[in-house]
Amino acid sequence: MIDYNPKEWLRYIFYFQKADTVRKLMPMILTMAAYSSVIAYLIIVHFRITENNDLKNISLMHSLLGFVISMLLVFRTNTAYDRWWEGRKQWGMLVNGSRNLALKLAALIGPEYADEREFFKKMIPNYAFAMKNHLRNRYISEEFEDTKLFQKSSLVTTDHVPNQIAAAIFAKVIELQKRGVLLPEHTIILNHELEGFTNICGACERIKNTPIPLSYSSFIKKFIFIYCLTLPIGYVFSLHFLVIPFVMFVFYILASLEVIAEEIEDPFGEDSNDLPMERISAGIRTATQALLK
Amino acid sequence: MIDYNPKEWLRYIFYFQKADTVRKLMPMILTMAAYSSVIAYLIIVHFRITENNDLKNISLMHSLLGFVISMLLVFRTNTAYDRWWEGRKQWGMLVNGSRNLALKLAALIGPEYADEREFFKKMIPNYAFAMKNHLRNRYISEEFEDTKLFQKSSLVTTDHVPNQIAAAIFAKVIELQKRGVLLPEHTIILNHELEGFTNICGACERIKNTPIPLSYSSFIKKFIFIYCLTLPIGYVFSLHFLVIPFVMFVFYILASLEVIAEEIEDPFGEDSNDLPMERISAGIRTATQALLK
Amino acid sequence: MIDYNPKEWLRYIFYFQKADTVRKLMPMILTMAAYSSVIAYLIIVHFRITENNDLKNISLMHSLLGFVISMLLVFRTNTAYDRWWEGRKQWGMLVNGSRNLALKLAALIGPEYADEREFFKKMIPNYAFAMKNHLRNRYISEEFEDTKLFQKSSLVTTDHVPNQIAAAIFAKVIELQKRGVLLPEHTIILNHELEGFTNICGACERIKNTPIPLSYSSFIKKFIFIYCLTLPIGYVFSLHFLVIPFVMFVFYILASLEVIAEEIEDPFGEDSNDLPMERISAGIRTATQALLK
Amino acid sequence: MIDYNPKEWLRYIFYFQKADTVRKLMPMILTMAAYSSVIAYLIIVHFRITENNDLKNISLMHSLLGFVISMLLVFRTNTAYDRWWEGRKQWGMLVNGSRNLALKLAALIGPEYADEREFFKKMIPNYAFAMKNHLRNRYISEEFEDTKLFQKSSLVTTDHVPNQIAAAIFAKVIELQKRGVLLPEHTIILNHELEGFTNICGACERIKNTPIPLSYSSFIKKFIFIYCLTLPIGYVFSLHFLVIPFVMFVFYILASLEVIAEEIEDPFGEDSNDLPMERISAGIRTATQALLK
Amino acid sequence: MIDYNPKEWLRYIFYFQKADTVRKLMPMILTMAAYSSVIAYLIIVHFRITENNDLKNISLMHSLLGFVISMLLVFRTNTAYDRWWEGRKQWGMLVNGSRNLALKLAALIGPEYADEREFFKKMIPNYAFAMKNHLRNRYISEEFEDTKLFQKSSLVTTDHVPNQIAAAIFAKVIELQKRGVLLPEHTIILNHELEGFTNICGACERIKNTPIPLSYSSFIKKFIFIYCLTLPIGYVFSLHFLVIPFVMFVFYILASLEVIAEEIEDPFGEDSNDLPMERISAGIRTATQALLK
Repeated sequence: MIDYNPKEWLRYIFYFQKADTVRKLMPMILTMAAYSSVIAYLIIVHFRITENNDLKNISLMHSLLGFVISMLLVFRTNTAYDRWWEGRKQWGMLVNGSRNLALKLAALIGPEYADEREFFKKMIPNYAFAMKNHLRNRYISEEFEDTKLFQKSSLVTTDHVPNQIAAAIFAKVIELQKRGVLLPEHTIILNHELEGFTNICGACERIKNTPIPLSYSSFIKKFIFIYCLTLPIGYVFSLHFLVIPFVMFVFYILASLEVIAEEIEDPFGEDSNDLPMERISAGIRTATQALLK
Repeated sequence: MIDYNPKEWLRYIFYFQKADTVRKLMPMILTMAAYSSVIAYLIIVHFRITENNDLKNISLMHSLLGFVISMLLVFRTNTAYDRWWEGRKQWGMLVNGSRNLALKLAALIGPEYADEREFFKKMIPNYAFAMKNHLRNRYISEEFEDTKLFQKSSLVTTDHVPNQIAAAIFAKVIELQKRGVLLPEHTIILNHELEGFTNICGACERIKNTPIPLSYSSFIKKFIFIYCLTLPIGYVFSLHFLVIPFVMFVFYILASLEVIAEEIEDPFGEDSNDLPMERISAGIRTATQALLK
Repeated sequence: MIDYNPKEWLRYIFYFQKADTVRKLMPMILTMAAYSSVIAYLIIVHFRITENNDLKNISLMHSLLGFVISMLLVFRTNTAYDRWWEGRKQWGMLVNGSRNLALKLAALIGPEYADEREFFKKMIPNYAFAMKNHLRNRYISEEFEDTKLFQKSSLVTTDHVPNQIAAAIFAKVIELQKRGVLLPEHTIILNHELEGFTNICGACERIKNTPIPLSYSSFIKKFIFIYCLTLPIGYVFSLHFLVIPFVMFVFYILASLEVIAEEIEDPFGEDSNDLPMERISAGIRTATQALLK
Repeated sequence: MIDYNPKEWLRYIFYFQKADTVRKLMPMILTMAAYSSVIAYLIIVHFRITENNDLKNISLMHSLLGFVISMLLVFRTNTAYDRWWEGRKQWGMLVNGSRNLALKLAALIGPEYADEREFFKKMIPNYAFAMKNHLRNRYISEEFEDTKLFQKSSLVTTDHVPNQIAAAIFAKVIELQKRGVLLPEHTIILNHELEGFTNICGACERIKNTPIPLSYSSFIKKFIFIYCLTLPIGYVFSLHFLVIPFVMFVFYILASLEVIAEEIEDPFGEDSNDLPMERISAGIRTATQALLK
Repeated sequence: MIDYNPKEWLRYIFYFQKADTVRKLMPMILTMAAYSSVIAYLIIVHFRITENNDLKNISLMHSLLGFVISMLLVFRTNTAYDRWWEGRKQWGMLVNGSRNLALKLAALIGPEYADEREFFKKMIPNYAFAMKNHLRNRYISEEFEDTKLFQKSSLVTTDHVPNQIAAAIFAKVIELQKRGVLLPEHTIILNHELEGFTNICGACERIKNTPIPLSYSSFIKKFIFIYCLTLPIGYVFSLHFLVIPFVMFVFYILASLEVIAEEIEDPFGEDSNDLPMERISAGIRTATQALLK
C-alpha cells in the first residue's frame, strides 16, 4: 500500500503512478479511439449519413440505461470495497488479538518460565508472518523465528502453516495448564484470542478465494463493452469528430470503476492498493516483544 | 462455482458459458424481437402512423420510471448478493469452527485416547459433508466415514442428519468430561465451536428456504414486463426498425439482473455460480486430518 | 407465506394472488383513472387549452423530483425489507437455539431423568408456539403441550406467556444444578441458549411495535399523492387521452412500493408475505422430539 | 411516539398533526412563495425579459445537480434513520436484559431472601426510568421506587444516576455471592445482563450527543438554499406565474427531508416521532414484577 | 468538535466557520472562475463560435456521466462517514468499558484495598487520555495521573503507551487474583472489559492509518477535475457569461463532497468536525472517580 496524503489534490490529479487505471487501460482506451475514428469517418465522410438518420437515436438507449450501468458499477464498487475493508478489519483484529494475548501471557506466566515466554514472544508474530505468506501462496523460511520450544524444522511447509502454529500455541497453553502454571480460569480468559487466530485466517482465505460471482463480473463487462461500442454511433451526429475524445473519456470512467474493483477485491497481494501486511506483521513483532520482554 | 480470473476481460466478454444469462434469456429475447418487429411493422408500414401521434410520447413514461426500475433492480441485486455472501460466510465459519475444534481437541485429548481422536477426526468433516447434502435435500452414504465409536448405521437418514452428528459430537465431549478426560473448563472452551455447527446449519437453511418476498419478486417481473412491452411503441417513431435491437438489448439488461439475482439467491445448488461446497468440505477433511493425526 | 419458485416468470406475471398489489390498489387506480379522464376532458375538450400553455411545463417538476421520489421509495423498501429479514433471522435463531438446547440437554441429562427430559422436550417447542401466538396477540391453549412437571393451568394467560415459559425452563435448569444433576460449568454452557429465547422474543416485539416513523410514512404518502395528482395536468398536452393509462401505471408503480413496504414491515401476521411461523414452530417440535427422545 | 396504522392512506394524506413538516415549514414555504412572486413579477412584468434570455438556462444547473441533492438527502435520511433505529434497538435490548435478569434472579435467589428479591424487582425498572430521564437531562424523583435495601436518598442526583443504580445492582450480586447465596458460576451467568445496562446507556448517550458532522449538516442546508433560490429564475420562463407553486412544492419536498432527519436523529425527546420510552419503561416494570413476584 | 443545534437553519446557511468548505475551496473556486471567464471570452468574443458548433454538445457527456459522478461522491461520503461513526462508536465503547470496569472493581475490591482502588481509579482514565494522545502521535505527560502503585516514570514514552497501561491494569488484576482478593470467576467477569481496551485502541489505529484506497481517491479527483474543466466549454453556448457562476457553483458542490469526506475520514484530529476526545476522556475521569471513590 502506498502511503499518501488524501488532501494533496494537484499531486493526485497529475501523478500517474504505476497502478493508475489510466496506464492500465491505455491500450483499451486507444483501441476505443481508433474504433470511434473509424465509425466517425465512415458515417461523416464515407457514407455522409445525415443527422435525420435513425442511428442518431441510438443515444436514447444510452440515456435510458445510464442509470442501470451507474448503479451496477456502484454495486460493484461497494462489494469490492467491502472486501478490502473487511480484510483490513481482520488484520486489525489480528493486531488486537496478538497484543491482548501477549499482555495477558506476560501477566499470567511469571519470569521464571523464560522458555515459555520466549516461545510465545516469537510464535505470536510468527503467526502473522505465516498468515501473510499463506495468503500469497508461499512460505518464507527466514520470516519464521525459531524458539527453544519450537523450531521451523517441525513445520510441514506443504501443509497449512498458520494452522500448525495456532495448534502449537494452543497446545502450549493447555500444557501449561496441565503443569499448573496456568489456572483453569486462565484458559477461559485466553480462549477468545486463541480461537481468534484461526477465525481471522479463515476469513482472509474466504475473501481471497471468493471473487464476486462470475455472472455479475461477466455481465458488467459485457454491458460496458456493448454500451461503449454503440456510443460513437449514437453521438457522432451531434459531436462529429469530437466523439473520439468523448468515447475515450466515457470508456475510461466506466472501465476504471471495474478495473479498480478488480484490484481492490483481493487485498492480499502486493499491488499498490493492497493491505500493508508486511508493516502490520512487523508491528505485531515489535508490540509482542515490548509486552513479553 | 467456476474458478475464474476476473481480470481477463476479453474472455468474459465473448465466452458464453452454460449459465450465462444470454443463453438463458435467448428464447425470451427472441420473443421480444418478434413482438417488436410486429409492432414496428404495424405502426410504420401498415397503419403508417406519423411522428406526431401521441403514442410517441409513451416514451416519457420510460424515462420517468427509468429510475424506479433501476433502483428496484439494484435492490434486488443487493439482497440476492447479500444472501450469497452470507452463505459463503457461514461456510467460512464452518471451516474455522472445524479447524478450531480439531486443534483444541488435539491438545486436550492425549494420544492415548486413539479411538476418541479418530471419532472426532472423522465426525467433524462428516458434519460438513452431511450439511452439504442436507442443503441439497439428499443423503450420500459414501461421504460419511465410519468410526469405531459411531457408524453410519446409527443415523436415521430420513431425519435431520447434521443434527444427529452434532448431537453425537456434543455427547462425546460430555462423556469425556464425565470420564475425567476433559476438565470442566475445557467444555466451556469447546462450547463455542460445538454450538457453532448447529447455528451455521440453521443459517444456511434459512437462506435456502426464504427467497425474497413473493410480492417483490412478482412486482419486479410485472414491472419489467410492462416496461418492455410498451418500449417499442414509444420508441418506434424515433428508431423505426432499429427499435428491434434496441428493445432486445434493454430487455436483456433488465431481465438479466432479475435472472442473475434468482440464481445467486440460493447459493447451495450445483449451478456455476453456487458455492464450492464440495471443495470446502474436502478442505475441512484435509485440515482435520492434519490437525488430529 | 406462499411457497413459490422465483424462476417461473410467466406464472407470476399473470397470476394475481390475493395479496397482489394490483388487486389491493384497484379502487385507487380506478379513482386515478377517473380523475385523469376528467382532467383530460376539461383541458382538451372543454377549455381547449393549447399546447403552449404553461400548465404543460408542470411536467418539469415531475422529472426534477423523479429522483427524490424514487430514492425515497427505495429507502422505504430497504427499511421494510430489513425488518422482514431481521424477523426471519430471529426465527432462524430460535430454531438454532432450540436445537442446540435440546441436543445439549440430551447429552447432559441422563435417561434416568425421564420427567425432566419430557419437560424440556415439550417446553422448548411450547416456547416457539407461545411466541408465535404472542406476536399475533392471542393465546391458543391447544398449542401448549402439558408435561408432568408443568401444566398449562399454571400459566397466567393474560400476562406475557413466553416470559413465563422461559422462566420455567431457566428455573428447571437451576433446580437441576442444585440437585447436582447438572454441574456448574453446564449452566454456563446452557446460558447462551436460555438467554436467547427472551432476546429473540424481545427483538420480534420491537419489529412488530415499531413501524417506520410516522413522519416518513406520512410524508411519502403525501408526496406520492401530490405527484400523481399533478401528473395528468403536466402530461395531458403531450399524451392527450393516453394520459389515463399513463397515470394509472405510474400510480400503480409508486403506490405498490409503499403498499408492499407496509405489508412486509410487520412480518408476523398471516398475510401471504408473512413469515411461516407455524411451519417453523412445527419444525422445532419435530427436531426437539428427535433429539430428546 | 404516536401510534398509527400505516395502512390508512387517506388519513395521513390529509391529517396534519402537530409535528408535520407542512406546519413546521409553513413560514419558510411562504417566504419562498413571496420571493418567487417577486422574481416572477420582475422578470415577466417589470423587465419583460424574453424567453431567449440566458437566465432561462440556469435550469440546466438544477437538472445537472438534481442527482447530487437527491443522493445527499437520501444519505441524510439514512443516517438519521439509522440512529433512530439503533436507539430503538438499544431500548429493546434494555427490555430483554431486564427480563432476562429478572427471570434468572427469580430462579437463583430463593423466596427466603424476600428483601433481595424486592431490591431487584424495583431496581431493574428504576434503571429504565432513570435512563429515560437521564437522556432528557432531568431527574424525576417520583419515578424512582424505594426498596428496603436502597432508597432514593442515597442517590447523588447531580451525578450520573443510571451509573449509580447499575453499580448498586452489581454490588448486590457480588455481596450475595460473598454470602454464598449465589454460586460462582451464577455471577458469570448474570454478567452479560449486568454489563448490558451500562453499555446500553452509553450507546444512547452517544446517539444523543453526536449529530451528523456539522460540515454535512451545514453543507446540505446551503445547497438546498441556493438550489431553491435559483429555482424561480431558471423556471419562470417556462412556467410564468405557475413558478410560485412549483418552487413552494420543490422546497417543501427538499426541506422536509432535512427537517424530518433533524427530528429523527435524536430519538430520545418528547416529539411525536420519538421513541416511546415511557411505555417501554412501564413495560419493564410490569414484566419485572410478574417475573420476580 | 463544534457543538451545534442542527435546527438553526439561518445560522448555518450564512455562518462560514473556519472549517467551512467555502473558505477552504475559495482559491480553487476562484481559479475555476478565472478559467471559465477565459473560456467564455475566447468562445463568445474572440472566436465568436456560433451555437451550432459541436462543442456545445460536450454537455451531453456531463449529463451522461452525471449519475456516475453523483454515485461515486455518495460512495465516498458513505465510506468517510462510516469511519467517522465507527470511530465515535469505539470511543463510546471505551466509555462503557471504563464505567463497567470501575463499577465492577468497586464492588469486587473492598475499601480496605485503598491503594489498589486508587490505582484503578486513576489508571482507567489514564488509558483514555493516553489513547487520545497516541492517536495524535504525541505523549502529554501532564495528562497522566500518577498512582502509588504506578508512576509515569515507568512508562517508555517512545513505545506504545496505551499498551503499557492496559498491560499494567491486566497484570494488577491477575496479581489480585493470585493474592486471593479476586476470586477466579471474577477474572472471567472482568475479562471482557480488560480485552476491550486494546481492541478499541487497535480499531482506532486502523481507522486512522487506512484512508480509502489511493485508486479511488485519485480517480475521484481526476474525474471531478476533467468534469469541471470541460463544463464551461459545453455550457457557454447556452449560458454565455452566466457560465462563470454556474461552473463555480457546480465545482463548489462536487469538490465540497470530496473535501468534507477527506476531513471526516480521520476523525481523531483537532478539526472542528473531529470527535470530542478531550471531553470524552474527561467524562471517563469523572465517572471513574464517582464510581471508585
